[in-house]
Amino acid sequence: MKISEIGGEFALINRVVRRECLDPAVVKGVGDDCAVIDARGGECLLVTTDMMCEEVHFSFRWQSFYQVGWKLMEANVSDIVAMGGTPRWAFLSLALTIDTSVEQVEDFYRGLYDSAARHGLTLIGGDTTHADRRALNLAVIGTAPRDLIRYRSGALPGDLVCVTGTLGKSEAGLRLLLAGKEGWSAGYTQPKCRLAAEGRAIARYARAMIDVSDGLASEIAHICEESGTGAVIKHDAIPLSPETTAAASAVGLDPHDFALYGGEDFELLFTISAEAIEDLRKEFSDFTVVGEIANEDQGVSIMKDGARRPIGRGYDHFK
Amino acid sequence: MKISEIGGEFALINRVVRRECLDPAVVKGVGDDCAVIDARGGECLLVTTDMMCEEVHFSFRWQSFYQVGWKLMEANVSDIVAMGGTPRWAFLSLALTIDTSVEQVEDFYRGLYDSAARHGLTLIGGDTTHADRRALNLAVIGTAPRDLIRYRSGALPGDLVCVTGTLGKSEAGLRLLLAGKEGWSAGYTQPKCRLAAEGRAIARYARAMIDVSDGLASEIAHICEESGTGAVIKHDAIPLSPETTAAASAVGLDPHDFALYGGEDFELLFTISAEAIEDLRKEFSDFTVVGEIANEDQGVSIMKDGARRPIGRGYDHFK
Repeated sequence: MKISEIGGEFALINRVVRRECLDPAVVKGVGDDCAVIDARGGECLLVTTDMMCEEVHFSFRWQSFYQVGWKLMEANVSDIVAMGGTPRWAFLSLALTIDTSVEQVEDFYRGLYDSAARHGLTLIGGDTTHADRRALNLAVIGTAPRDLIRYRSGALPGDLVCVTGTLGKSEAGLRLLLAGKEGWSAGYTQPKCRLAAEGRAIARYARAMIDVSDGLASEIAHICEESGTGAVIKHDAIPLSPETTAAASAVGLDPHDFALYGGEDFELLFTISAEAIEDLRKEFSDFTVVGEIANEDQGVSIMKDGARRPIGRGYDHFK
Repeated sequence: MKISEIGGEFALINRVVRRECLDPAVVKGVGDDCAVIDARGGECLLVTTDMMCEEVHFSFRWQSFYQVGWKLMEANVSDIVAMGGTPRWAFLSLALTIDTSVEQVEDFYRGLYDSAARHGLTLIGGDTTHADRRALNLAVIGTAPRDLIRYRSGALPGDLVCVTGTLGKSEAGLRLLLAGKEGWSAGYTQPKCRLAAEGRAIARYARAMIDVSDGLASEIAHICEESGTGAVIKHDAIPLSPETTAAASAVGLDPHDFALYGGEDFELLFTISAEAIEDLRKEFSDFTVVGEIANEDQGVSIMKDGARRPIGRGYDHFK
């Protein structure tokens, strides 16, 4: 049976991964941005891992080795930050083709180390090997006090749905590159995830949080699934940068679709009570209210021109 | 510049990986079987990661999906066990080709879970994606009391060099498969690493330890480099199984070369004082003395027919 026949990547994981776990130290296994281990009496470990394959997740046609190293680190750190954690230690696996030069590898590591320095974490282990196609994997361990970790599952009906920064930047950059058009593509080639201090500030007030790595539509669906809720996203409230709007215009597409169904923006999507939002704003204010959590029976929808429609899903590797 | 021109994989790592680390929690970074983090007041975390790429590290021409899953887990657990640790939590990244079936993925996970059950650890996170070539990465976290962790760097001149079980099993199996000959190939297709209880027993008495994943020659060289010593390995003392000897005979090669330069036996190589060895033997006895640690200026050599020669190195992915 093909993976696409059972519904793609998420359905596959649901089918093959055994979720029961007898280890009392495991607070959260498969099913959130990170696994959470409480092996230290209240101070938890957050663990995430991310694989990137050449010509699927990156391409040297439009990214430098430096940028690929940078992006690999940001993508992983984003998962730690999205639970309220502080990234600490990274572990790199690198499968290189035999024609990869020493200078290219050095460039890759410079990108990786520059991003790591931005977040204050250290690369302390890994594995280097060769392959016919380049593949990269990073695992990152972070830490967080157990009571400050935010999960996908904490949303309550009535919560406001918020997102940091702007969305669609990554897809906008990719579309420009694919079309061979001039414009700002750094949102794709060298994205910046949110800092741990920002994630921690949000975590103190938010009820649920996730990073936006597969598009707003997919991420809000994850929050609703895990929280047992629905949600309404306001189409016109989705924050877009002028660069994203310009890119969409250049390629003749709707920038809202970049935000909803594009990937790798590495912003934070969170839900928060109306009362707590003003307190958060005093500490951190670079976010926009894009919708509201609803009851589960209302589903996950988007409101546009006064009409609601189902929001659909983001990118799935096997669909 | 080509990676092979600077001396291959290990030289590359030495060149690009920055080893200085300002994080006081990091006991050991790059340069041993695992990174060691003391973030818990004496109880350390051991972290290892291993990438396997199709047609380089595994092939479905002679391994089942079950066996590949099994081997990926054993290879990682072996690194934890080789430092005296107990494997606890695993994180899988899986890049699948679009033609991979659900049944194949289920088979792969069964192998992974069966090996995990053998070692009492839990898979609690990961990443699933697609690629043109299948690639797998596993990261495993283990735990160990800080004072019972054994490093590559602890060997002293005069120590006996010992190895568990027998060597060359994996290379023997691979050679049979490559030659299309009948015989015992499970040492390659479905190897078993040592159990944590065995590694812990050895760790209590040994001074240095490493797992045999790249051949005896490479592993003893690692111990000597990190310990600032030399070593003499006795050719005739290297333990070989009847199956390995039979396989070598079938393909017309020397089984000692399988042990010295083959990979993936996942046995433990350790150094121990002559006084401690009898105490160890009361708790664990499935090992053989294969040589002795010497002063650094004597280099790393092998003694055969009364003559010493340099031992050479094991497998390097870029040579």
